[in-house]
Amino acid sequence: MPSSGASPNLAGMGDLGKLAERLREFAAAREWEHYHTPKNLVMALAGEVGELVAEFQWLTAEEAASIMDDPQAGRRVRAEIGDVVAYLVRLADVLGIDLLEAAEAKLAESERRYDPARYRGVYRKAPPLE
Amino acid sequence: MPSSGASPNLAGMGDLGKLAERLREFAAAREWEHYHTPKNLVMALAGEVGELVAEFQWLTAEEAASIMDDPQAGRRVRAEIGDVVAYLVRLADVLGIDLLEAAEAKLAESERRYDPARYRGVYRKAPPLE
Amino acid sequence: MPSSGASPNLAGMGDLGKLAERLREFAAAREWEHYHTPKNLVMALAGEVGELVAEFQWLTAEEAASIMDDPQAGRRVRAEIGDVVAYLVRLADVLGIDLLEAAEAKLAESERRYDPARYRGVYRKAPPLE
Amino acid sequence: MPSSGASPNLAGMGDLGKLAERLREFAAAREWEHYHTPKNLVMALAGEVGELVAEFQWLTAEEAASIMDDPQAGRRVRAEIGDVVAYLVRLADVLGIDLLEAAEAKLAESERRYDPARYRGVYRKAPPLE
Repeated sequence: MPSSGASPNLAGMGDLGKLAERLREFAAAREWEHYHTPKNLVMALAGEVGELVAEFQWLTAEEAASIMDDPQAGRRVRAEIGDVVAYLVRLADVLGIDLLEAAEAKLAESERRYDPARYRGVYRKAPPLE
Repeated sequence: MPSSGASPNLAGMGDLGKLAERLREFAAAREWEHYHTPKNLVMALAGEVGELVAEFQWLTAEEAASIMDDPQAGRRVRAEIGDVVAYLVRLADVLGIDLLEAAEAKLAESERRYDPARYRGVYRKAPPLE
Repeated sequence: MPSSGASPNLAGMGDLGKLAERLREFAAAREWEHYHTPKNLVMALAGEVGELVAEFQWLTAEEAASIMDDPQAGRRVRAEIGDVVAYLVRLADVLGIDLLEAAEAKLAESERRYDPARYRGVYRKAPPLE
Repeated sequence: MPSSGASPNLAGMGDLGKLAERLREFAAAREWEHYHTPKNLVMALAGEVGELVAEFQWLTAEEAASIMDDPQAGRRVRAEIGDVVAYLVRLADVLGIDLLEAAEAKLAESERRYDPARYRGVYRKAPPLE
């Protein structure tokens, strides 16, 4: 998007950065920034995750595994996940956290903490890394 | 990563796609795929969001707004957000949902639903789109 | 309720026990017991708590403190809390846990763990009891 | 407790009322009332429910159904449920909501909304009551 003008550095942002930018503009256009405090956004995220959980609560493991084959339920799940992503990206933007870096750092820690041979097939909580 | 061999199409994936791939490998290396059902992952996501909420629960709005200035709390918030992203990406991967598309679709809907002039400054729930 | 017949021991139950009994009858009358597994009920509880959180997410601390003065919002909060209680009581009933005993045991632990003089006015996480 | 002085009406309270009173005293003794705003307590409740969900996330339906047979897991579940009850009772106390009344009102509504014959054996969302 080199010619967009409004955000000259958009070209250097990843996809999540572009979404963060669009959410920022969404809030600014409605003068809703005062709602988007970390505390409020964390609550909004929890609320949306609650709605996502509710889509799965009465399904058996088998029904849950094929939920996307049901057009109506699949549409609802996609919409709830979309809400979760939007609030998570907005929260990270407000806090100044890079979502991908945060996830990769945590994954790298889990890779060290859970030795594949030792934990093969059966999860149990590993002691924290020293 | 053109020479990785294992995932010849990684080059064409966005950053989230690469993270999804890495999480898939993490689960496969430990034979943990049987844990990663949609129902279980949605619960894991809810659990991690609960831990994130807990970081903010006793803070005033002002304290929450500057939480990243506190090195210890900031590190915990970043770690919890990393866990949330990891489970969200893994869930979306298992369900076959594109997280960015889902968020953009939901945002486009909100842009139509919340007319900037009409909702300026004060949020209230809009009626669903017809 | 000595003459109810169906539950001769209701008279000896506390209020929560009577609610648990009524929820049991509600599920039985609809043949919904197969939905009410611990895993499903814990998800239903998380979903309802998410709806409760959503009632508070955009409110300032001051607005939240007087939410019950707003008849509409107050009615929604009361209804969401009612749902939370119902699923919590049902979950405890299915698991065979006495909710009051569990809360009192946890409170007794916190009373020992947080010395009033030492933690006066400022919360911080205490080390676990030895 | 007729001679406690501080709460002459404790004798007339139900069990939940007595727990609410004890939680009030717990907060007062530590001067923690300023933390116990509705917004903060709703977040604490969500955090504790997240921890409860986490106890069940990797269990199969069968394992979850017998979780209380495992002494360690059972102890953790009981402790998490105790925390959930404590924050729920404290929240209701601060908001001035009677938990039992709220649950009974919601249950009465569900009893009307879900006709046993019509919904027998299979849950689906009923339309709201008119």
